[in-house]
Amino acid sequence: MERAGPVVESKVSVRYAETDAQRVVYHANYLVWFEVGRTAYCEAAGYPYARMEADGVFIAVIEASARFRKPVRYGDIVTVRTRFGGMRSRGCTFRYEVALPDGVIAAEGETHHIFIDADGRPRRVSPAVTRAFRFFAGA
Amino acid sequence: MERAGPVVESKVSVRYAETDAQRVVYHANYLVWFEVGRTAYCEAAGYPYARMEADGVFIAVIEASARFRKPVRYGDIVTVRTRFGGMRSRGCTFRYEVALPDGVIAAEGETHHIFIDADGRPRRVSPAVTRAFRFFAGA
Amino acid sequence: MERAGPVVESKVSVRYAETDAQRVVYHANYLVWFEVGRTAYCEAAGYPYARMEADGVFIAVIEASARFRKPVRYGDIVTVRTRFGGMRSRGCTFRYEVALPDGVIAAEGETHHIFIDADGRPRRVSPAVTRAFRFFAGA
Amino acid sequence: MERAGPVVESKVSVRYAETDAQRVVYHANYLVWFEVGRTAYCEAAGYPYARMEADGVFIAVIEASARFRKPVRYGDIVTVRTRFGGMRSRGCTFRYEVALPDGVIAAEGETHHIFIDADGRPRRVSPAVTRAFRFFAGA
Repeated sequence: MERAGPVVESKVSVRYAETDAQRVVYHANYLVWFEVGRTAYCEAAGYPYARMEADGVFIAVIEASARFRKPVRYGDIVTVRTRFGGMRSRGCTFRYEVALPDGVIAAEGETHHIFIDADGRPRRVSPAVTRAFRFFAGA
Repeated sequence: MERAGPVVESKVSVRYAETDAQRVVYHANYLVWFEVGRTAYCEAAGYPYARMEADGVFIAVIEASARFRKPVRYGDIVTVRTRFGGMRSRGCTFRYEVALPDGVIAAEGETHHIFIDADGRPRRVSPAVTRAFRFFAGA
Repeated sequence: MERAGPVVESKVSVRYAETDAQRVVYHANYLVWFEVGRTAYCEAAGYPYARMEADGVFIAVIEASARFRKPVRYGDIVTVRTRFGGMRSRGCTFRYEVALPDGVIAAEGETHHIFIDADGRPRRVSPAVTRAFRFFAGA
Repeated sequence: MERAGPVVESKVSVRYAETDAQRVVYHANYLVWFEVGRTAYCEAAGYPYARMEADGVFIAVIEASARFRKPVRYGDIVTVRTRFGGMRSRGCTFRYEVALPDGVIAAEGETHHIFIDADGRPRRVSPAVTRAFRFFAGA
């Protein structure tokens, strides 16, 4: 992860529901873990995402990608490391790493977002959101 | 299934995402298949559930139960058989069977529902919904 | 919950992925939370389920039921309370409550299980598993 | 989609379970739909994926990406168009489009895969798989 700024860590215990018939975590579930990381990041930045929505700022995912390097299994407790990848007037980016207990990176990825209103229309981000993320990032 | 009334059948191809590390379908996914069956039932009754919601009638699940008799695996195409279990002024019931290709019942269950409005408050069912279900059930 | 024995508590932060278009947690996900509770229970009893599987004892769900009393939303952190409902030579039962932060019960349910081997055949539970659960239950 | 070769189409009816609190399909579920497309592609190529696994060839996802252009809602029936993106000795690629009923592209993406054996070790693809995909692609 090339950018500066804080890294927020979340612990995730693998659920049996998240495994598949290859006895490893089904790949789409990493995107859900990225969401867990995003939730933790907003919380750590002082602006929980549930409050953002209550304030009329919804974040939609417009692009997501992930590289899966090592399998993760039921019984593993992974660490999701989330970093803010930058804010624009109409969107933002997050980057993620999923680390196994021994520190090995199991997966990494990024998601790109736009801000929308309650009716799904693109909107500018509110100053309050910008302020929270900037302050937290020390920028 | 003891009650009279039409049975609506839906074919479901097992997704890899639905399997777990025991190489069989994870049990919670049967509740999702029951929902597939419910959707098909409302469609067959002439009142698709998406239209019900557009008309202000939302159906919430207040109780669900299932018995899992035989494992289902990736590659299987199962048949979900859905039957209406009865209407009350504030709720209704559906019953389900999940059959393997050879006719063996893999699972069965039932769900109990109440009608709510867009804000989640209990409401009486609309006459249009009652009429559709009664007409379809031949009652 | 009528039976004696320890209650194991797990905290679950609602994921956006777990919500549905009614803006509440989709009902099938409570069964996944019950599994989170079961995992925590086995861990607390000193015999993590991943180790059970490594020792050749697999637990399959043969029956599940749940009552949904109050909606749960993104942003909520619920407590899953898991209790052992009894052991037989070929199966066991767990009971669950999902509590909202204010203590209100959002849902409750139970699951019934049989023990199987790696090939999915029913088997007797191993003495080691019985011992762990009995010792933990103080029975 | 720049490459030649057949396109396999799969119809997917949106499940309520796949929606989220923004009342649209949760983004991670598109990866599951891509898997539905891959399953249909292998079937159309004459070598169903379940049979590949029975023959000892497992396909693991090592990379996935998707762009989400338009929201998809409960009640929509989308078409997943899957195309083969090329075979190498140790892996292959698939490309996907998700189209709304009016033909508008709701999402597109690609997945990269390696072949592994039953124990998760990388292996060369079997000639039978190569033959099926090449023959189907008319190459």
